[in-house]
Amino acid sequence: MVARGEGTRENIIRQAATLFNQHGFTGSSMSDVMAATGLQKGGIYRHFESKEQLAVEAFAYAVNLVGRRFAEALEGKTNAIDRLNAIVGVFAGLSTDPPVPGGCPVMNAGIENDDGNPALRERAREAMDGLRGLVARVAERGKARGEVRPDVDGDALASVMVSMLEGAVMMSRLYGDDVHVARASAHLRRHLEECVRAVG
Amino acid sequence: MVARGEGTRENIIRQAATLFNQHGFTGSSMSDVMAATGLQKGGIYRHFESKEQLAVEAFAYAVNLVGRRFAEALEGKTNAIDRLNAIVGVFAGLSTDPPVPGGCPVMNAGIENDDGNPALRERAREAMDGLRGLVARVAERGKARGEVRPDVDGDALASVMVSMLEGAVMMSRLYGDDVHVARASAHLRRHLEECVRAVG
Repeated sequence: MVARGEGTRENIIRQAATLFNQHGFTGSSMSDVMAATGLQKGGIYRHFESKEQLAVEAFAYAVNLVGRRFAEALEGKTNAIDRLNAIVGVFAGLSTDPPVPGGCPVMNAGIENDDGNPALRERAREAMDGLRGLVARVAERGKARGEVRPDVDGDALASVMVSMLEGAVMMSRLYGDDVHVARASAHLRRHLEECVRAVG
Repeated sequence: MVARGEGTRENIIRQAATLFNQHGFTGSSMSDVMAATGLQKGGIYRHFESKEQLAVEAFAYAVNLVGRRFAEALEGKTNAIDRLNAIVGVFAGLSTDPPVPGGCPVMNAGIENDDGNPALRERAREAMDGLRGLVARVAERGKARGEVRPDVDGDALASVMVSMLEGAVMMSRLYGDDVHVARASAHLRRHLEECVRAVG
């Protein structure tokens, strides 16, 4: 059984994650959090000492949900190319059915905080490191197992895949049209076919 | 000679374009515009009836400067692949040396307003239409002139190029590291080589 205080805290984080992901850190006020949770200001500040602390925890919550999507998609897949294609598939879902409404929290926080809040920028970098590291590790392991061509650079593939998919999520969300994510995914799936080690 | 009122108006737009591009529409207040311009509130509202009107004009100003970069880069180039490579090169500059500080105004406005201000979302869509349309037209003319393979889809190429470059600008700005734009550009230049019509 969850203690009442803990349930309230989690509910604040969940509601704040949606607000911050849709409207940004500066675009969301503590009044918005109060309205979304039905709590008074004191009830929120009892759990979080500042809007920034709440935003940091709400971002961690959102990134964790994105991470779970990747973990689920990768489960049971061992071949590196299958795993990389599964990663492409998760991004497609971040446009139409994001785990937190508002699209990819990593990109949203990245765009807002490149010239913004330093604590949130640092968290956005760490989350982006996580995305890039996932792609790079899968590619490098695939090379070691002979599934990926030896001249494929895992870090470069990570930059290419993540930048293209994040950009496509942005475009599809801006237009409310999945076609951009579909085209980006098709391009990357063809590119991944070229990364497969030729069987000599 | 520019009338004094016109110079003031242009200065407000220029300062506001930087503020909105770096900190967003909700992240910039009229007090910030007052501080940046050294004007009183009345001096700003004499020229703009609302913060939204100022943001719309500041965005148009920023997009126009980006458009000039493309026009300059394309000048004198006739071959479609040369023109597409020139477009890739302009995006690289949007990360390190944007015409308005804060990165690509189209992506910044797109991310902020997908769930935000409807007037600004509409302007972001129009500007994105402009970017996509430029790539698609160059590709389609290249097909008609026999410079681009007939199976290349101009609209799909536009989604692929623009999403990858916008995403890479976001990543490079988040880390303060050009490598992501460099990797995305290298990937696209190789892809464009494959788009060249094979000389039979």
